[in-house]
Amino acid sequence: MTRIYLDAMGGDNAPKCTAEGAIEALRADSDLRITLGGDAAQLTPLLMDCDDVRERITVEHTTQVITNHDSPVMAVRTMKDSSIVRGMMAVRDGEADGFVSAGSTGAMLAAGMFRLGRLDGIDRPALAPLMPNGKGYFLLIDSGANVDCKPEYLRQFAIMGDIYMRRVQGMKEPRVGLLNIGAESEKGNQLTKETYPLLEKAPVHFVGNVEGRDVTNDVADVIVADGFAGNLILKFMEGMAGTLLGIIKKELLSDFRGKLGALIAKPAFKRVKKLMDYTEVGGAPLLGVKGAVVKAHGSSNGHAIACAIRQAAVMARTGVAQTIEETLKTMPQADE
Amino acid sequence: MTRIYLDAMGGDNAPKCTAEGAIEALRADSDLRITLGGDAAQLTPLLMDCDDVRERITVEHTTQVITNHDSPVMAVRTMKDSSIVRGMMAVRDGEADGFVSAGSTGAMLAAGMFRLGRLDGIDRPALAPLMPNGKGYFLLIDSGANVDCKPEYLRQFAIMGDIYMRRVQGMKEPRVGLLNIGAESEKGNQLTKETYPLLEKAPVHFVGNVEGRDVTNDVADVIVADGFAGNLILKFMEGMAGTLLGIIKKELLSDFRGKLGALIAKPAFKRVKKLMDYTEVGGAPLLGVKGAVVKAHGSSNGHAIACAIRQAAVMARTGVAQTIEETLKTMPQADE
Repeated sequence: MTRIYLDAMGGDNAPKCTAEGAIEALRADSDLRITLGGDAAQLTPLLMDCDDVRERITVEHTTQVITNHDSPVMAVRTMKDSSIVRGMMAVRDGEADGFVSAGSTGAMLAAGMFRLGRLDGIDRPALAPLMPNGKGYFLLIDSGANVDCKPEYLRQFAIMGDIYMRRVQGMKEPRVGLLNIGAESEKGNQLTKETYPLLEKAPVHFVGNVEGRDVTNDVADVIVADGFAGNLILKFMEGMAGTLLGIIKKELLSDFRGKLGALIAKPAFKRVKKLMDYTEVGGAPLLGVKGAVVKAHGSSNGHAIACAIRQAAVMARTGVAQTIEETLKTMPQADE
Repeated sequence: MTRIYLDAMGGDNAPKCTAEGAIEALRADSDLRITLGGDAAQLTPLLMDCDDVRERITVEHTTQVITNHDSPVMAVRTMKDSSIVRGMMAVRDGEADGFVSAGSTGAMLAAGMFRLGRLDGIDRPALAPLMPNGKGYFLLIDSGANVDCKPEYLRQFAIMGDIYMRRVQGMKEPRVGLLNIGAESEKGNQLTKETYPLLEKAPVHFVGNVEGRDVTNDVADVIVADGFAGNLILKFMEGMAGTLLGIIKKELLSDFRGKLGALIAKPAFKRVKKLMDYTEVGGAPLLGVKGAVVKAHGSSNGHAIACAIRQAAVMARTGVAQTIEETLKTMPQADE
């Protein structure tokens, strides 16, 4: 039985959608138990109509909620009865196999570092969302947890991303690329120039640099970046998609032909929106901590929460964290 | 009379399109003279049908062509009879007021630095294309000339971008933003955190950080970035637009309704493509060198070349370079 601790209070639509997500996940997977950490008074009524899975749900009453307005490090240090801290502690103490939250990203990173702890051999845990490229998905690691990076961190990101894609996505030989501003090995800033040779020697299928124009061109399954560059790409993708679809909409609605065409082609446009919607794939795993931790999107609905729970369960079952630790133990260090 | 030196051999479609662009620019502006630097044997036949402007064209025969395969610094040092080096020297020596090329970006940067020279007070010249955001344009400075930057460089980029938008685009009070991964002043990597207070004190209308998701949201007229981050954004925008339009096309063509709708809405889609086509706005000014230098897109057609020539002429006439130099002279240094 895989045991997932869900931060029932995290996300824009909590606790309604977190409760719904838990129920959906339990119905889809009979080998799952979920602990909902949160305000019991709010949660209990949301669990009225799920007798079929109710016995696999535990509600753990917590009295504190960390919001996006709290200083993450301070909140994680002082708010010990928050669902984020309690969940991370449950994983650390072996009471849960994985943790899922749609709450404050900063608090999750801080709690992952200071409450759950890093794996041996990992300097910095990284947040690694799956991003759509129209044909499939690529893992962007790091997407914002570590803004100033050393080459060695990026080497570890590459190895973690490779293991995640093999274990959780079932990929045979993930193509690992380095986000950079030129295709040639000597291109880039100091960080990427120093990282390139490390990735050549790393135990991954390194396919070289990935330029901005190729990020969504399906040239790599794992794209390695420092958290600053990764976060720019993550958020620019969201913004750019919105801008472009907005322009298309405006132009279509600006004359009769456009309006008619748009109306007729509406189902196709719906499919496009779904293809580019990264909440469909679940959440972003926090790789490098001692457990299966998934950050769901803040705007997650019940289905997105269920996907994130499933993702954490698969991570726990396939031993992603253990494999990362073992791989790094048996490997020569970067400077050898 | 404004005198522009055009690298007639630069770009994918040279010298045909460069000659066409020169003729178009001269017909639109009677106060313009153009020197075409390139192979006279190839150029002369292309100037047969322009008697109306022929007297304002000078062909300067050059024997060398720097390609994208040449090492920029080495090429600029050794290929003294290339149109890029000759053009930069002509500006330096006061024989031309501006220089335009659609050739090797690296060679232009190197020639700008070593043949033409930096303005007093400028540490690093920057390449600053105008990028579409659906509503209008923003200037992205730097877009790749300087991959590893100090905060002081970014301060200079902000001032140069501000002056360009005022002088050339006729904007009253350009909004200057800092590309970053969070909205709050304390967010970012070491570089952006140290740059923020410099921009607060700079003589520009600083509007704070611009996150990835807001780059195309018309929140700033000048977006300041180090060349690594700027180049990622520049190229990702190109790639992402292509990917998204490709997905839309594929989905539209996947069923009858979509096909019909697309056919009817075709004019609207053409307008969208034009709105997102950044070759329409001319080229990217190289700001911080001693003259009006514009890098046109490598795939420029004749019209794009004509736009870039006009842009260089406006830069020269409005004294962008001189204004930058004077502004920096009268300003306190960053560390005071």
